[in-house]
This record gives sequence, structure tokens and C-alpha cells, in this order.
Amino acid sequence: MQPITHIADLRAIAQRKLPRAIFDFIDRGSYDEITMNANRSDLASLRLRQRVMVDVSERSLATNIVGEPATMPIAIAPTGLTGLVRGDGEILAARAAQAVGVPYCLSTMSICSIEDLRAEIKTPFWFQLYVMKDREFSKSLIERAKQAECSALVLTLDLQVRAQQHLDIKNGLGVPPRLTLRNALNVATKPMWALRVLAGKRKSFGNLEGHLAGVENIKQYATWIGGQLDPSLNWRDLEWVRDLWPKKLILKGVLNAEDAKFAANGGADAIIVSNHGGRQLDSASSSIAALPAIVDAVGDRIEVLFDGGVRSGQDVLKALALGAKSCLIGRAFLYGLGAMGEEGVRIALEILRKELDFSMALTGVRDVHDVTRAVLVSPERGLAQN
Amino acid sequence: MQPITHIADLRAIAQRKLPRAIFDFIDRGSYDEITMNANRSDLASLRLRQRVMVDVSERSLATNIVGEPATMPIAIAPTGLTGLVRGDGEILAARAAQAVGVPYCLSTMSICSIEDLRAEIKTPFWFQLYVMKDREFSKSLIERAKQAECSALVLTLDLQVRAQQHLDIKNGLGVPPRLTLRNALNVATKPMWALRVLAGKRKSFGNLEGHLAGVENIKQYATWIGGQLDPSLNWRDLEWVRDLWPKKLILKGVLNAEDAKFAANGGADAIIVSNHGGRQLDSASSSIAALPAIVDAVGDRIEVLFDGGVRSGQDVLKALALGAKSCLIGRAFLYGLGAMGEEGVRIALEILRKELDFSMALTGVRDVHDVTRAVLVSPERGLAQN
Amino acid sequence: MQPITHIADLRAIAQRKLPRAIFDFIDRGSYDEITMNANRSDLASLRLRQRVMVDVSERSLATNIVGEPATMPIAIAPTGLTGLVRGDGEILAARAAQAVGVPYCLSTMSICSIEDLRAEIKTPFWFQLYVMKDREFSKSLIERAKQAECSALVLTLDLQVRAQQHLDIKNGLGVPPRLTLRNALNVATKPMWALRVLAGKRKSFGNLEGHLAGVENIKQYATWIGGQLDPSLNWRDLEWVRDLWPKKLILKGVLNAEDAKFAANGGADAIIVSNHGGRQLDSASSSIAALPAIVDAVGDRIEVLFDGGVRSGQDVLKALALGAKSCLIGRAFLYGLGAMGEEGVRIALEILRKELDFSMALTGVRDVHDVTRAVLVSPERGLAQN
Amino acid sequence: MQPITHIADLRAIAQRKLPRAIFDFIDRGSYDEITMNANRSDLASLRLRQRVMVDVSERSLATNIVGEPATMPIAIAPTGLTGLVRGDGEILAARAAQAVGVPYCLSTMSICSIEDLRAEIKTPFWFQLYVMKDREFSKSLIERAKQAECSALVLTLDLQVRAQQHLDIKNGLGVPPRLTLRNALNVATKPMWALRVLAGKRKSFGNLEGHLAGVENIKQYATWIGGQLDPSLNWRDLEWVRDLWPKKLILKGVLNAEDAKFAANGGADAIIVSNHGGRQLDSASSSIAALPAIVDAVGDRIEVLFDGGVRSGQDVLKALALGAKSCLIGRAFLYGLGAMGEEGVRIALEILRKELDFSMALTGVRDVHDVTRAVLVSPERGLAQN
Repeated sequence: MQPITHIADLRAIAQRKLPRAIFDFIDRGSYDEITMNANRSDLASLRLRQRVMVDVSERSLATNIVGEPATMPIAIAPTGLTGLVRGDGEILAARAAQAVGVPYCLSTMSICSIEDLRAEIKTPFWFQLYVMKDREFSKSLIERAKQAECSALVLTLDLQVRAQQHLDIKNGLGVPPRLTLRNALNVATKPMWALRVLAGKRKSFGNLEGHLAGVENIKQYATWIGGQLDPSLNWRDLEWVRDLWPKKLILKGVLNAEDAKFAANGGADAIIVSNHGGRQLDSASSSIAALPAIVDAVGDRIEVLFDGGVRSGQDVLKALALGAKSCLIGRAFLYGLGAMGEEGVRIALEILRKELDFSMALTGVRDVHDVTRAVLVSPERGLAQN
Repeated sequence: MQPITHIADLRAIAQRKLPRAIFDFIDRGSYDEITMNANRSDLASLRLRQRVMVDVSERSLATNIVGEPATMPIAIAPTGLTGLVRGDGEILAARAAQAVGVPYCLSTMSICSIEDLRAEIKTPFWFQLYVMKDREFSKSLIERAKQAECSALVLTLDLQVRAQQHLDIKNGLGVPPRLTLRNALNVATKPMWALRVLAGKRKSFGNLEGHLAGVENIKQYATWIGGQLDPSLNWRDLEWVRDLWPKKLILKGVLNAEDAKFAANGGADAIIVSNHGGRQLDSASSSIAALPAIVDAVGDRIEVLFDGGVRSGQDVLKALALGAKSCLIGRAFLYGLGAMGEEGVRIALEILRKELDFSMALTGVRDVHDVTRAVLVSPERGLAQN
Repeated sequence: MQPITHIADLRAIAQRKLPRAIFDFIDRGSYDEITMNANRSDLASLRLRQRVMVDVSERSLATNIVGEPATMPIAIAPTGLTGLVRGDGEILAARAAQAVGVPYCLSTMSICSIEDLRAEIKTPFWFQLYVMKDREFSKSLIERAKQAECSALVLTLDLQVRAQQHLDIKNGLGVPPRLTLRNALNVATKPMWALRVLAGKRKSFGNLEGHLAGVENIKQYATWIGGQLDPSLNWRDLEWVRDLWPKKLILKGVLNAEDAKFAANGGADAIIVSNHGGRQLDSASSSIAALPAIVDAVGDRIEVLFDGGVRSGQDVLKALALGAKSCLIGRAFLYGLGAMGEEGVRIALEILRKELDFSMALTGVRDVHDVTRAVLVSPERGLAQN
Repeated sequence: MQPITHIADLRAIAQRKLPRAIFDFIDRGSYDEITMNANRSDLASLRLRQRVMVDVSERSLATNIVGEPATMPIAIAPTGLTGLVRGDGEILAARAAQAVGVPYCLSTMSICSIEDLRAEIKTPFWFQLYVMKDREFSKSLIERAKQAECSALVLTLDLQVRAQQHLDIKNGLGVPPRLTLRNALNVATKPMWALRVLAGKRKSFGNLEGHLAGVENIKQYATWIGGQLDPSLNWRDLEWVRDLWPKKLILKGVLNAEDAKFAANGGADAIIVSNHGGRQLDSASSSIAALPAIVDAVGDRIEVLFDGGVRSGQDVLKALALGAKSCLIGRAFLYGLGAMGEEGVRIALEILRKELDFSMALTGVRDVHDVTRAVLVSPERGLAQN
């Protein structure tokens, strides 16, 4: 096998290894993928400001993310159905995060339950919550997260209704997720882990297991979940969550300054500037384009995290330069997971670390906390003026 | 067959099913297709402003279009020779529009006559008129539209002279439309409906049938029609039409503010901002680029409709955001018609509805009447400033 | 054969019919072809302002070009070695121009001599001159142009030194033109006209024939010509030409306002804004980008003509809108000549006429003299402002 | 073989002739190659201002580069491992530079030693230095450069840490350079020169030979070198170098005005605006975009040289127009070296000279010292304003 040198290598391997339905599910975006592509191209359009002859022999990427120490300003984003990418995918990814020293966030929509993960992981992890129509069930999830000593609750804001990924439907993965796995995964070629999930050996949709007694198959779960998305969710519901959850509360899916102010006023500890990886509102701004105005609006009051198109340490540095405190990665770790399991996630994280470290050195920054907008070349400079 | 998830799927099926000459006729634009392509790319370049945590459990797309209720702000544009795409194409499309609850507009250049359609459809429909050199014939068409209780007359302004679509000529569809169908349609493979049109089983060019007695074939019709385009048409002719037609009058083909003012001053009830789908003046502005100045000029006086490149609910939302009251779709429904007949048109409309509904939800808009320019990210914000 | 509907069709046929060396010679540009491509893309980027309901039943394209009536604002540009594209290529193109009613300009570097052409053509034609080191020879050419009653002299300014077209060298057409035709043209496949030129049946390099007695072959001619380019040429030489040539004097190859003023001050009757079709200075501005400042500087004093990338009537209209009085076409007629000889040139001209006529109608312009900058959508309008 | 008409031809031949690992090593850039590509596209985006009718019969490209006469404003950049491209690659390139009359700069990371080159070349050459952790060794290199009468020392600033080229790792060329040549070069097909290097016939890594006694193979050298990059390097170290080296001192790798000022204040005679050919900080500005602000800041105090994406004489002219005194070429000469050895480097230099000479003529510049920003079309002119 060729050496793995950047995230694109992990993606290529994952594409070979995963059933097409699963790869497309993680790889693609909603509708015409305008926003997904903008996430990448807007990041690529930014230019870093090289500095030389700065003593960068002592460099530090270590930081705090929402109050907890991390070895670098990167966290693992909550991603749905991670356990379908690899058997025990959530556990594998969380172990890699623990090994590397960055936060892991478990999704409500996980194959693995909160308790399963708690049993496997020593360090605190975050739990991502969708507020469902059945508020009692949401409440029970919050309670379980407390029991599991999750250190932060990540409340997803941008999934009151669910977008469509064309290929998911074509591949037999419904939206809302009708996981007709028997269609999606070619039975003849499907790997052992898929059979295990199908056979229920690992508690599939573990977080919902206790709630839905007697359902016969995955599809029933999924239909129920789809019906639980709550379009009535609004800022008043934030109070309800805030009351139930005394620890760190992170709001995910903020894409403009007004919403960021509501979040800050509502008592959130942090927000994640995110467009759900280009998987929800298509034609929404790229995350990086949305970031500066949000930082200007609330950057001094709450911690602003970033997510959307991060595939390299350079991307991380650019987001930090525009005011993000840390970045979350989704596809970047899922490619690693699909390619090589826990080791793949670890490799993905180490690639980003190495690239970020290098890029800091060449922009003359010794400590990740010293990254400022000066790290970017402003567009009013340079060629545009000639 | 794979599930149909967006308009592009219908296009792909239509391309497989239709004779190439017919597919190219509906799919392509005039000359170098600069304007046709700009219609799409300018729409794609706009960014929607995501809002979260707004209670969007009650959403309404229902509106009025030129005085009539519609279930969403979308209407079926008049398209020539629709009956060549499918036998009885006009009737099938109108039935789908009726089922879905949106206006249908019959073209002068239809295979099906006004009376044919009236016999099949219960709800009001619109009739599109070219003012011909033979004003008496134009007058008779207006009279027939009255008799058929058409609810609105759509006067096309941008066809005083006719552009060229290169492929139409190469495919044997002349401009002006020399419908040498025996050449255009491969006889061996042509579907039954084409034979029916050729054989005259359905009254072909029904609207002209009574007028042109004794003509022997379709080509003669077409030659006559081509000669009827009237380059002398001007705003004074509008008075003549206005006098003959007391009901709603819509002017189609306005692309700048000056013309929009003439239209408003001339007593039109509505205008359609349109470049004829990129099928007339090549290098004309995209419709979406032309829209804002027109809305600024006359938006408070008459209803401004929009047409040009709409292929998704996101596109509809963008046009509404820039001031359009509703959108007309041409190719989007023709692909559906070519792919699956009436059902295909219905599917096209439902796809757009679902996408519009979703995009409204994620931009925090509950009622389609509440869409404003605030739904768009203004270009002076975001990345461009960093 | 498929119908020919636009210039690209003629190009495609010419590509099939011509020896590759000859096709590349006319089709390609100098160095990296940045300027050649910019000529086309800058024209494509402009948007025409559609107007409707203007009585355009009476439209007129007729104009005067440098004092002579023409049926439309288009002239045939001087192109070197036109006789290699087709035997008697200059005569064929001039006949087509005469038939259509537009000026033809014979190049110094023609296979056909001034006298040859004079014998064949009834109407006045223009003669293009390179001022050579051998001023006496240049003077003799001017005298011959007078004798032939040429109506205008076109002095080329941008060929003091000659650029390189990479493929010409690779194809065996040297720069300066080492016409090693035996290499360039595959003998086995070369058409009759090439054999004729090689055999000297038509007086090859006719304009130099009398001057260079005893030279044995085309290559010797060409070497001599290459050595005659005069890098010392300057504005003082214009006086010399002006004194020798009392009739209309047109300066070709002006690309900025300063040079345009020198030209006007020097007594020129007209200038041609041109970058030699992207065949000289690579990275020079596109002609259309250079046009407005030149028109602003001298448009009220001398006639400003335009050349560079014109392939459609829309392109012509755009150039007129930015202040050009007429356009010259090079490749557009050469493709026609290579494809179908005289008939091909006529078709090319009629395509442009039809497109220009149509585009004028849809921009509401009845007379070509009424074209103004208002025909263009200004960039400060439309989408860019939203 | 087809004639060689531009640098791209040399690249194509080099690609065919070189082992893939070596070709990729010279051809590719770091990480996502954003900066490498920006170097080229930003140069391409600039437009030259054509001037005509200027007497350009006497043109001069001759200049001084950092105090020494050169026949044109071009020098050979220091490139690592040049001796792997061709056996004795450094000597061949230096001979070509000597023949053409431009400076050659030997890299610390050369296969050939300073003394080897000195023995072969009569004219002065430059020596490029990395300041290593082992300062004594760096000092010894400076001493050897003095002994060899090198005329200038080029201190590389932008390699305190080393970027990654993905393909180098995949091809078996490590970073830091683990030259596992037995893997990188297919033994069966590797040319004689590669065998020679492997067999140590030419003193490989000649500059380090004396320093590292007893090492057994190339890989050991390389590992040692990789460990010698010194991230603590800072502007105070410049004093140390300045004290040791009394002759001309050139600082390479400056990409913004602040660093340029430090360089000028630190006693450098010249700087090279460079991003290491897009091989270090990816997403750094293109060199040409960075140039103007640097020239504005220090252009009147020290000599500003340029490097980054130069592949044509037009590129050279653009860099001079924005204030560079001369340009260095890297890949452009390496392609020539890989394609045809010394002759290839000579051809590369002559191609650039010819193109520069031509482009100066058509911009009306007689002497290379007369090139100013006026040679460029400013963006506030032309099409953008219409």
C-alpha cells in the first residue's frame, strides 16, 4: 500500500473499501452540493501570510476546547450512523481521539449507545442531541449523558427538517433515514461488521434501544426517528435544555451573526459555525464565509468553533485566523475510519496536526493562541491592486 | 428504475426517451447559449441566509398568482410544441398543474387547441399569445381564449424576430419552425405519439386549425406561423390587446426596468422577467441578474413574475428573495413530461415544492409571503471582506 | 452535410479539410495564447440589454466604413498567406466581400498580387502594408496600390518584430515564415491548390514577384520578407507614408489611448483596435478590453475600427456598443474560406449579418448608427449589486 | 524530434526521460499545490500594455544582478539534488549559465561539491546556504564558498521546517529527504548517471562529504541533513552570517513587506521574493502577488529579485514591471536539464531571452532598465469599467 500522506488518500481508500451506499452517505452533500463545494473552495481561496526568521523551535498546538485541555484545536464532530462505516465505529473513533488527545462527540444517531461508549473510553466525551418531538425521550437522553459524565452537550440547531442527499435515496438509504440496509448493502459482498449490525450483535441505534421496546428491525427505528425531528424547535426550547444540562452547552449549526447573538444570550458556552457539512440548506454560505461576522458579533462573549470543509492543517489555521477557537472535523475522520478503523482516525488527526504545526511555523506563529487575522493576507493587498 | 430525486433525473430520463431532435429542441438555447448558461450559474452564485431555532412547524407555500389561488408560487410556463414532447402534452401538463394546484399556461404554438384543453381541464388556465401580423387572427385567438374562460392572457414580447438554435436546424427543426418531422424523427424508432401527430389524429397546431383551411401538412402551418411574427409590434399595440382582453393581462419577456415601466404604464397586471429561457437574445442578462432593478422600478405597482433557469426550490426561493412573486418553469416541467408524461410533470412540481418548503424552513421563513431580500446573504458580507 | 449555422461549423469543416499545418497557422495564437483566449472570453463576458416592444420592422445595418458604403459594419481583415488556405484565396474572399457588400483588405503577405486581385474585382479594395527596411520597395507597393485604385491603405503597426506561434514551428512553418511547404503539407494528401502554389502556377507572393527576380523558391522569398520587418519603425515614419498616400489611411494594431492619440495626430483617418488576433504580444489586453479607453480618447476625431475575437453578430454589436464604428474579421472568414472557398466566406458574412440583425432587433435598435453603450448592461447593475 | 519552442516542450521531454520519482520531485509542489498553481495563474492574469511605433531597433537586455554583469535579468535558482536530474547536473547547468552569461547558484543540497563546481567553471557563481543546527558546519560551508571565490551567498530563509510533497513520499523520496534511491529509481530502467550517483563515482552530497566521515550510504547523509534544519533561526542569526560573509548577501524566501524591511535593516544586499516554488507553505501568496508591496517597502534600499512560476519571457517582464530587478528560474531550467542536459538549460535560457526581448519590443521598451509599472495594464482600466 502507498504511504498515506494527506486526507485525500484516506478518502480514496475508504471509497474502495466501503459499500457505495455508505461511502456516498458520508461523502456527499445535500441537493446540488453548492454549499458543500463552497466550503472547500472558499477555504482554498484564502492566502496565508508567510513569515520567516522567527524562532519557531518551540511550537505549541495545545489548547482548551470548551474548557477541556486538548493537544490541538481540533475535535471530532458528531456524525450520524458512524457505526455503519465500521463496526463499533463510534468507539474506534473515540479511542483514536482519546489517544491523540482531542474531544470526541457522540451523535444521537449512533449505532453505539452512550453507555457502550462510556464503558470503552476513559476520558470525557461530548454528546450531541437532537431535541425530538418526544421531549421526555430527549430529556432521558440528557439524563443518560449526565450519567455517562459527558463533559459537554452539543445541541444541533439546523436539523429541524431534514435535507435530501439524492444519492442516499438512490442507494436505498432513505431520508428521513430509512435504513433499508438489505438493499443498500449488497449481501454477497457486505463485510462482517454490516452483518453484525444487521443481526443486532452490537446494540444498534443504541441510544434509542431502551426507548423503543419490541420494534423488530432497524427500519422501524429509523422511521420513528425521522418522525421525531421537531420543526417547532425555537430559542425558548434552549432554556429547557439549559435548565436540564448544567455543564458545557455547545450550539451547533449557527451560520449568521443574529443567531449567534441569540445563542450567546441564551446561555450557550460555545457555538459551532457550521452548515452541517453542506448536508442541510443547499446554497447556504460556506462556513468560512460566515465565520468572520459571527466572530465579530459574539467572539468576545462565547467560544466560537468551526466546522465545514476542513481537510488540512492549513484549513484549520485559516479558520483560527478568522476567529475560530477550534475546528471540528467530520468527513476527514470518517474517511480515516472507513479506510483503516481506529488507526485511520488517528492518522487523519496526526496529518492535520503535522500540517497545522508546519503552517504555523511558516507563518511565524509559535503558539496556537497567537494566531490572529494577521496570519491571512488581506485581499486589499497584493495582486488585486496592481 | 432509480428513484427520481431532483429535476436532473427527469432530464436524464427524457434524454433517453425522446427523439434527439425533440430533446435538443427543449433542452438547448439560442446561439452560443451564453444567456441560457448564465441563467443557471447566476442563480447558483447566490447564497441563502440560514436561520435556526425559528418555529417552522407551520409552513405555508400557498399564494395568489395574478389573482388566483395557487398551492405554491410556481406556474407552468407556455412552451411551444409541447404536444411533440408527448402526445397530448399540453393536456397532460395542464392536468398535472390542476392536480397540484398551480396555473397552467397554454402556448399559441401548441399542438392542442384552446378548446381541446378546455374540454379536458376544469380549472382556469392561462393562454399565451403572440401578436401576429394577421391581427384579425390574433383577435380571434383572444376571442377563443375568452370563450374558453381563460383567466389570464400572457402576451409574449420578446419574439418579434426569432433567434436560432443551432441544433434545431441541424436536427431538421427549422427556424422559423419548419417542422420537417419526417426528417427530425427517425421513423423506425419514433413513438406512437409522433405518428399520431404526423397523421393528424390529434388536431395538430390546434389553435390555427380553423384559420388555415386546406393546408396539407404541418410544414405549411409552420411556414405560415413563421411569417406571422411581427417585428413592428410596439407598446401602442398593447392598448389594442388591453382593449380586447378585460381580464388579467401578463406581459412576458421583460428584462429591464424601462420596459417594466412601460408595461406597468400600459395597464398590464403582471410581467414575467424572462429571457425566453435563453432561447432568444444571446448575451442578454440572466433573468435573475435583471430581476432586482425591475422589482425596484415597478414592484409596488404590478406583480413581477420570474422565469429563467429555475430547476430547484432553492432557485425559486432566490427569485422570491429578489422580489419575484412567483416563478414559471419551462424546461423543468418539460423534462418531467418527456420522462413520464403527466406523472412526470406532477413529480417535477412536487420536487420543487419539497425543496422550496425545506429551504424556507432552514431560512426561518414560515410563510412564502414573508420571503424578503434578507433571505439572501448580501455580497458585501462574508468572505469577500476578509 | 449538416447545415452550417454558426462560425464554429465552418471552423470544424476547415479543420477537417485543411492540412494541419495550415489550419493551425490560421487557428492558433502566439506563445501561451493568453491574449487570443482573452479576446473571446472578454467578449463573452459582456451582456446585451434586451429591449422589447420597439417597432423594429425597418432595420438597417448599412453604414460607411472609412468613407465607403458597406451593407453592414464588417470588413475582411488582411490576413497573411490567405492563398495557402485555398488556391486564389485572396480572390475568393474578395469576391465574397464584393458580393456581400463589405470592404476587403489585401495583405502584403498575399499569395495573390495587388494586380491579380485588381483584375478580378470591380469594387475598391484596401491594401495592407508593412513598412519594410527596404523603403523603396514599400514605396513601390504603395505606388502599385495607387495604380490598382485601392481605396484605403492599412498600415500595420504591431509587427516590427514577429511573435512565435509554437505550432507553426512544429508544423514546419517557420517564423519568420520559412514556408518549407514540402514538409508542412503531406505530399500524399495535399490538395490540388497546394500543388498549384508549389508549382508556381499562380504567382505566389505576388506582391513581391517583381521585386525579387531570380529567386528559386518560396523559402527564399520568405526569408527575405522576414528580414524586412523593421524594428526602427516609429511615428515619424507615419509622415512618410502619409505623404505618399493621399487617400484613406488606416492604422492597424493600436491597443491603448496614447498610441491612438499619436495616430490621430499623425493624420490617420482611422485606426483598428487590434492585437493581431492574439498572434503578436501575448498577455496583451484583449481588444475589447482596450476599446473603451481608445474611443474615449480619439473617438470624436477619427474612425475607430475593431478586430479581435469576433465570431458572431453579438460580438459585433458589443464592439459597436463600446464605440467601434465597424469590425474586421480574420479567422471567421478564413474558416469559411478553408471550409468552402468563396461560398464559405459569403456564408460567414451572412451568418454574422443575420446574428447582428437579430441582436439589434432584440436590443431595440433599428439602425446600426443608433447603437450606443446603452446596448450593454453596465456591470454596476444587476446581480453584482444584490 | 519536434522543435522545442517553449519551456513546456522541455518539461514534456523531461517527463518522458526522467524516472517518475525524480520528475515528480522537481515538478510538483507541497500539500495541495495551491500556492504552486497560484504562482502561474497570477502571472497569467496580468496584462501587458502594448505600444507601437517606438523605434526598438536597438534593444538591450543586459543588466547587473547583485553587482555582476549579466546578459539578461535572469539567474539560475539554487535547486536541491540537481545532480539527480542528470549526472553532474549542477556542473552542466552552471556551464550553460556561464555560456549564456547569467549567474548560477549552487545549492547546499547538491550532489556536486563547491570545489567540484569551482574546478569546472571559470566565472563567479553563487552559493546557497541553509543555516544548520551545526553552526560550525555552516561556518565551514561559508569558508569553502569564500575559498571557491563565490561572488554571493544566498541564504534561504523559508526552510526552518520542511513541507511535504505528497508524491515524494509515495515515490520513496522521503521528507526530510530519505533518498532511498534503490526504491525510487527502478533499477532495471535507471540511466547510467543514476548508477553513478548510487555507486559514489561522483562525490555525492559533495558539500557534506568532508563533514560526515564513515557514513555508509546516501540515506544516512540525508537523515543527518534533515535533522540539521534549524527552526530556531531568526533575524539575529543574520548578523552571524553577515559577519562571516563580507561579499554580496542575498536573502531568499521573503514574501511580505515586514520581512523585507528586516532583511534590508539586517544588511542584506538583495532579497529574493519567493515561496520556494510553491514547495513550502501551501496557501502562501503567489510570489507575484507578494511582490509589489515588498518593492514599495524596500525597493529603494536593496535589490529585489523574484522567483516563482516564471516559465516565459512574458512572465519575466511582468515581474520586472512590478519592481523586480531580475528573476530566478528553477523548474524552467530543471526541465531543460532533465530533457537535454547542458544544452537543455541553454535552450531554456535562450527561449526566455527571446520571449523577453520580443515582449519588450511590443511594449515599446528598448532597455530592460526602462521597464516600469507602465508596462502593465492597470486593472482599473479596460473592460472592468464598462
